[in-house]
Amino acid sequence: MNKDELTFTSEIFATEDIKLAETVETVVIGGRDKFPLLPEAFNGINKIGVIGWGSQGPAQAQNLRDSLKETSIKVAVGLRDGSGSMAAARDAGFNEADETLDEMYEVISSSDMVVLLISDAAQAENYKEIFANMKDGATLGLSHGFLLGYLDSIGEKFPANINIIGVCPKGMGPSVRRLYVQGKEINGAGINCSFAVEQDINGRATDYALAWAVAIGAPYVFKTTLTSEYRSDIFGERSILLGAVHGIVEALYRKMVMEDGVNEEEAFTATVENVTGPISRTISHDGILAVYNKFSGDDKKVFERMYSLSYKPALDILLEIYDEVSSCNEIRSVIMAGRRHHRFPMDRIDGTRMWQVGEKVRANRSDDPELNPMTAGMYCATMMAQIDLLIEKGHCLSEVANESVIEAVDSLNPYMHHKGVAFMVDNCSTTARLGSRKWAPRFDYNLSQQALVDFNNGKPADEKLINDFKNHKIHGALATCATMRPAVDISFKG
Amino acid sequence: MNKDELTFTSEIFATEDIKLAETVETVVIGGRDKFPLLPEAFNGINKIGVIGWGSQGPAQAQNLRDSLKETSIKVAVGLRDGSGSMAAARDAGFNEADETLDEMYEVISSSDMVVLLISDAAQAENYKEIFANMKDGATLGLSHGFLLGYLDSIGEKFPANINIIGVCPKGMGPSVRRLYVQGKEINGAGINCSFAVEQDINGRATDYALAWAVAIGAPYVFKTTLTSEYRSDIFGERSILLGAVHGIVEALYRKMVMEDGVNEEEAFTATVENVTGPISRTISHDGILAVYNKFSGDDKKVFERMYSLSYKPALDILLEIYDEVSSCNEIRSVIMAGRRHHRFPMDRIDGTRMWQVGEKVRANRSDDPELNPMTAGMYCATMMAQIDLLIEKGHCLSEVANESVIEAVDSLNPYMHHKGVAFMVDNCSTTARLGSRKWAPRFDYNLSQQALVDFNNGKPADEKLINDFKNHKIHGALATCATMRPAVDISFKG
Repeated sequence: MNKDELTFTSEIFATEDIKLAETVETVVIGGRDKFPLLPEAFNGINKIGVIGWGSQGPAQAQNLRDSLKETSIKVAVGLRDGSGSMAAARDAGFNEADETLDEMYEVISSSDMVVLLISDAAQAENYKEIFANMKDGATLGLSHGFLLGYLDSIGEKFPANINIIGVCPKGMGPSVRRLYVQGKEINGAGINCSFAVEQDINGRATDYALAWAVAIGAPYVFKTTLTSEYRSDIFGERSILLGAVHGIVEALYRKMVMEDGVNEEEAFTATVENVTGPISRTISHDGILAVYNKFSGDDKKVFERMYSLSYKPALDILLEIYDEVSSCNEIRSVIMAGRRHHRFPMDRIDGTRMWQVGEKVRANRSDDPELNPMTAGMYCATMMAQIDLLIEKGHCLSEVANESVIEAVDSLNPYMHHKGVAFMVDNCSTTARLGSRKWAPRFDYNLSQQALVDFNNGKPADEKLINDFKNHKIHGALATCATMRPAVDISFKG
Repeated sequence: MNKDELTFTSEIFATEDIKLAETVETVVIGGRDKFPLLPEAFNGINKIGVIGWGSQGPAQAQNLRDSLKETSIKVAVGLRDGSGSMAAARDAGFNEADETLDEMYEVISSSDMVVLLISDAAQAENYKEIFANMKDGATLGLSHGFLLGYLDSIGEKFPANINIIGVCPKGMGPSVRRLYVQGKEINGAGINCSFAVEQDINGRATDYALAWAVAIGAPYVFKTTLTSEYRSDIFGERSILLGAVHGIVEALYRKMVMEDGVNEEEAFTATVENVTGPISRTISHDGILAVYNKFSGDDKKVFERMYSLSYKPALDILLEIYDEVSSCNEIRSVIMAGRRHHRFPMDRIDGTRMWQVGEKVRANRSDDPELNPMTAGMYCATMMAQIDLLIEKGHCLSEVANESVIEAVDSLNPYMHHKGVAFMVDNCSTTARLGSRKWAPRFDYNLSQQALVDFNNGKPADEKLINDFKNHKIHGALATCATMRPAVDISFKG
């Protein structure tokens, strides 16, 4: 993105120009003290319809309702007729009696702003009817650029008579809700959001997007485009956020058990538990370099070797994923997979022995395990390779930092620490689930065939790669991002 | 394909209508006794230029030259200026002095028929210049539909002033040459070919294609379209021919070592050696059912369970591959990968411990190992799933049989038995190599996560699947195919 794409002005919210490494990005700092600005920012919007009750739906519908409860703006949930989620929406306080719960097209046609949070496949299948049901001059909100990518892939466009905006939380729905609730105690706790204005028919689209982001609890809001968003998002979940982390732990677990004679539970602790526990927590609190700095002596050398030997095989697969996403191949694959699922529903991955071992390990947890230098080296190398790739492809540093680091260590990894990586893979969005199943094995094989072979053969560390790591601008950028939100440990219990 | 697409007539070669299961296909039976027909069949062609010296190039150039040596038709090899293969072509008897070896565009512009055997990526990169250099009214011959798929993917077409034909050997180049040489002793030994006429500007395209197939030693020649060909070919190498076989043996080897306590060399023998050795040989000589019939007692039950539990997870991935290929996603991926290889050349896969163990096992071979019922069950299930899928997608039975069974057991598996699966993956065409690296891990994970988990949990066999297997029409079709060539054991030594 060029500089113009990163800057914006708002009539309602104060903007700040923040310096992330050498680039300047305009952002809005969120927080509960900004809630009084919401009615003015949403000027012209009397009803917000939140469509869908998957991962983001429950979080955003409740956050919007809670943030707007002192205003006249109504928040309603719209679901398919006969949806199995009606009961859950009622439990969360939405109901037919006061018209905060209804059939989705009823909600779409009566809302001034439609926040469309149904699955990617459902968006691709129903977009025509959704567009046709929207009020003239209304605003369509997306939390993800998939629909734009799909329209691109088939040569279609959004209708010209509505605003098209995006507000994309850099964390899964449950984190968006949980941190918002924690934010009642600690102002500013929440999940960062990017926003995008794809189409602005009345000059108000930017403020609508900022208000939406602030209302769902974003600590800070940065600008992107829907194209950059869907590329980095679909890429990210296939990479360090989910696909890569799964592939990495499978490869390392197998190496430890088959080649190093480590027993299964110890190997699980040294790999999966390490990533989702102490490695993530260290990065979240003190940054990526802090992981490296915690090692000394031989452990530091192991980290340096594994980092050096993993960086290129990881980048190799990351480059392939980025090409597949930006060529729209990946979106076509998701659509084709959806058509096959009637015949072959996706099966679970969590039956293999490794994940069974993991259940036992989680059940018997005591203290945090020590940082494992092999696991930390491979994980940090993959994370850094992703950061380098997204910078090379022109994504702004906020997007890079959130999609490569903050979403991982503040949202997904803590959830996986609680429930297991395999549970996450089996229970995330269909697009992410497909991506993880597709790319985890690729990371596994490439890292096993290159990095682990080189490691076993005693290949030394690459000094240049280690120096690049130590002096990388992402460390400063992450520290700046950290100043914009309070340190809240997200915890998933029960 | 509909029936019209399967039938054809020839003014030169006798055609036969063969019955494969319930369908009738027109074929031409090859053999050295047909060589005297070649000059008339090639009427109008004085010079054949074979472009490229990869896998098919050396085989087809030498076979064409040897078959046409009593005629006035000249066979010349064309290579890039400064190609490292010039020396190898000279060693094979082509040389500048008698104008049977020259720069590729010199050969293209002076030939009446151009057999284009450069890599897929090179075809995609150079097709405009190749078309521009061809004589008006000449014939372009392809051994694979990739170029058509590529032109489809970018919305371009072949030039209208030339014949476009395909002759596609159902085996790798070294087998095409080796069996042709063996055919000097045993008339009819060779690799079956499909042929396709994509564009016929002078009414002679069918005979040119048949003559080409007969001249390179095809025991029998059946008709297809270039579209069917590239789909089944690109699909096949990603599936049972290479990608699936690699994924299957990785999954089973790991299970045996990590879960069943089998030592590494025994596990290698029970998996890789089993597939490329006795399982392939049994199928080649006596058909797929013969593998099943060799088991009795508990082993038969193990086969039935593993067959039943593997069929669906294999079909799941096979369906995905077919969609990726027929949507042109896979071709776009190959082209994009080619652009990345300047930065990241493909690395080898053969350094992992399993393939190191394999080297030792191959070096210490004595007798054939016993058939392993787990390995046989998973391999046969994947093969049958591929057969069912290709039939469902409308491929003719000859294409199904050759692309799913005959090419595997008569060409690729014997080569892998000699050199190793990993060597094959590292040394096949770039398109196949990329496909194998992409899909082997997917088969591995899906079979491990579904079939092996179900197997370990004691899930029983599926009677219907086993009965479908026993009564499948492919068995009769394979037996018919077998009558059209002599039984020659292909051997790779030294």
